[in-house]
Amino acid sequence: MRHRERASYERATVNAILDEALICHVGFMAEGQPYVLPTTHARIDEQLYLHGAAANHMLSSLANGAPLCVTVTLIDALVLARSYFRHSMNYRSVVVLGAARAVTDPEEKGRAMHALIERVHPGRSALIRPPTPQELDVTTVLALPIEEASAKIRTGPPIDLEADYARPCWAGVLPLELKGGTPIPDARVPPGLAPPREIAAWSRKPRSRS
Amino acid sequence: MRHRERASYERATVNAILDEALICHVGFMAEGQPYVLPTTHARIDEQLYLHGAAANHMLSSLANGAPLCVTVTLIDALVLARSYFRHSMNYRSVVVLGAARAVTDPEEKGRAMHALIERVHPGRSALIRPPTPQELDVTTVLALPIEEASAKIRTGPPIDLEADYARPCWAGVLPLELKGGTPIPDARVPPGLAPPREIAAWSRKPRSRS
Repeated sequence: MRHRERASYERATVNAILDEALICHVGFMAEGQPYVLPTTHARIDEQLYLHGAAANHMLSSLANGAPLCVTVTLIDALVLARSYFRHSMNYRSVVVLGAARAVTDPEEKGRAMHALIERVHPGRSALIRPPTPQELDVTTVLALPIEEASAKIRTGPPIDLEADYARPCWAGVLPLELKGGTPIPDARVPPGLAPPREIAAWSRKPRSRS
Repeated sequence: MRHRERASYERATVNAILDEALICHVGFMAEGQPYVLPTTHARIDEQLYLHGAAANHMLSSLANGAPLCVTVTLIDALVLARSYFRHSMNYRSVVVLGAARAVTDPEEKGRAMHALIERVHPGRSALIRPPTPQELDVTTVLALPIEEASAKIRTGPPIDLEADYARPCWAGVLPLELKGGTPIPDARVPPGLAPPREIAAWSRKPRSRS
């Protein structure tokens, strides 16, 4: 299966994968133990902003510019082969290495929060109450420059051993899709107020399907 | 949003999340740099087996029983609130800390590979060619005891500030579902051989929806 995998350092490829992933996994060390925590991220140009549990946990480790790793993974398809070891998944993943800084400038923090909302919910920032200075002040946002980054991608059908193709066994690719179901309003939404079209039709489709 | 989050150390909760996730993210140190790599996993009782790129990369770090972290995250829903900071996601995640060992016993390795296939593709091991001793021999499988593990779960609607509920803005939860699309046979599948029902109907639904 390694024949169908390729590495890429091209910025457009790296950015597209970062922008499509709903969450990232952040790895860092604390007292000799590696931790990996899920968190949300948004990219603005060549900065990757992190917000959420991982950002909070990492703040103490960050004071000394400790190294970290941010990884995102998109699973595009299950790859079904004719033997155990040729089973695989089609995926696109990105690894970003570096050191983060805590964002303290309120304007930069506001831009990062805007990007975090708009990336997952296009158009939503216009509908909701904007952040107050106090809210921004108590919020942790980290910034990581996207300098040392690489993408890894697998596409295409299974690659079986020649002798195994005679096996009367279905083999191929099952594309996976992350889809939104039926939106569930909370108890305080006024009756008759329908969800915006961006929510009702939300879907994050894999771009490379086969 | 933290009011809707809770931590759990209950084994059944941890196991159910591990068993539902398609992949995990493995964190480890190599030469002072943390790395986070996606890989596949399967649980047998209280052992978590890892196979794939991360397992290969970690082998050298493992000789000295280096600490690692395995994290899985299931995103169940987008949580749409009436202000920026109350937006969230409903999710279930598990963090397992410990030290892994390389599996060398061919029988244990065979059981692990069987679990890795059957977990994602129930019934498939009966259809495909079994592993040869040579294939097992060159395959890296790591085992991590599930001893130090915790789950974190968010469920339910957004929790807005009281003053924000007056805003005429749809808010609630959008459940997400990972679904299989149309199976794509590879070029060597005999005409007329349909995919097994488990593939055509593959779906990994979130169990806790709201």
